[in-house]
Amino acid sequence: MRSASGEWVLGFDADDTLWHNENIFEHTHHRYRELLARFHDAPTVERTLFATEMRNLELYGYGVKGFTLSAIETAIELTEGRISADEIHRLIALGKDMLAHPVELLEGVEETLVELGARHRLLLITKGDLRDQERKLAKSRLAPRFRQVEIVSEKDEPTYRGIFRRHGVEPARFVMIGNSLKSDILPVLALGGVGVHVPYHLTWAAERVAEVPRAEGRFFRISSMRELNGVVEAVTGRGR
Amino acid sequence: MRSASGEWVLGFDADDTLWHNENIFEHTHHRYRELLARFHDAPTVERTLFATEMRNLELYGYGVKGFTLSAIETAIELTEGRISADEIHRLIALGKDMLAHPVELLEGVEETLVELGARHRLLLITKGDLRDQERKLAKSRLAPRFRQVEIVSEKDEPTYRGIFRRHGVEPARFVMIGNSLKSDILPVLALGGVGVHVPYHLTWAAERVAEVPRAEGRFFRISSMRELNGVVEAVTGRGR
Repeated sequence: MRSASGEWVLGFDADDTLWHNENIFEHTHHRYRELLARFHDAPTVERTLFATEMRNLELYGYGVKGFTLSAIETAIELTEGRISADEIHRLIALGKDMLAHPVELLEGVEETLVELGARHRLLLITKGDLRDQERKLAKSRLAPRFRQVEIVSEKDEPTYRGIFRRHGVEPARFVMIGNSLKSDILPVLALGGVGVHVPYHLTWAAERVAEVPRAEGRFFRISSMRELNGVVEAVTGRGR
Repeated sequence: MRSASGEWVLGFDADDTLWHNENIFEHTHHRYRELLARFHDAPTVERTLFATEMRNLELYGYGVKGFTLSAIETAIELTEGRISADEIHRLIALGKDMLAHPVELLEGVEETLVELGARHRLLLITKGDLRDQERKLAKSRLAPRFRQVEIVSEKDEPTYRGIFRRHGVEPARFVMIGNSLKSDILPVLALGGVGVHVPYHLTWAAERVAEVPRAEGRFFRISSMRELNGVVEAVTGRGR
């Protein structure tokens, strides 16, 4: 099926696709395990923190502020209240450091967006704290590269369906590029679009999936954004 | 100036305009002052908490999660670290209670939206935590009343300008209805639109303004949503 305009739309995830993010969380986790090391071993700390985050996800949503609150809650639980107020204050400071962290683009991102933006409509589709995502986008200086920006609270099929409707996107002419199979690839494949997976070297446990996407000719994996142009041209050129 | 369609668009704020919100914060503040009463008097607690919130606003943005983090930070500061982990845990629980609180509509809201929605395009424009605002909208069951929903991180002139552009709104045919002069009325008047102020009985200090809006024939104040229909008809009828 060909849309009236024949236009292809490319959707980009942001965290760990355009710029580094999970490494900032990893650094904080390291400091967190150190802080609690006199009470518990690292696996116990990580397991309990993750359980708290999952329990609070419905209420807090994604993002640094919810993470910080879950980290404080877990620290109190794991120390049976013996953690000091000063140590909790350090957790708040760690959270603020994450929010204030500079944005470091991944290799090849800027040139790739410039090249692809000349031929296709580019959307940014990211989930998390509204203010934090807006700030990162501003710091990245990539905002002018995107025709539209969608900051959403979850990236599932209903979310993508809403985005397709709002922006007049035909799913069969939509390519989503991102590092998360769960949030960027599987829902888009399910709706008939194309997914390009660009793995980041770290993946948050909540984004891991065992499922291997099966979608003949609609699923691709690349190791760097530098390879994206070739894949997009191969996909979008098929219609000609 | 008359738009091609002659269509009027009505924008509605959500918190304290469609449903109660500030009373939930007020309840939490009360509990917070009690918790810290053995350390400081109520005015000191309130003054210090507000200063922390304002200092953190750029980083945290609006919403319950940022408020909870600021409340924890302030408690540690005001008690010079003597607050217990269990008491901090209670602050986290208070924050969760706020997020899980039922949504209670203000008087006359539902009927007014039904009546006005039959004749005009309705937008919801609210600021705060993305997940929290989405959840409140879902609980309110008012989502079907709005053609579009905008959850934004700040409600200033650039934000409204972006909304006008995205949704094809002509400022001179836009009426914003809300309880905050600062966020709902002044920026809209500055852009040439109409503002209808519906004060709520509580106003967060950060939303208070000394300025009295001056905009002949474009600024109205009503005491209940029940009066909105009459004002809107008077305003939109002028073009006929």
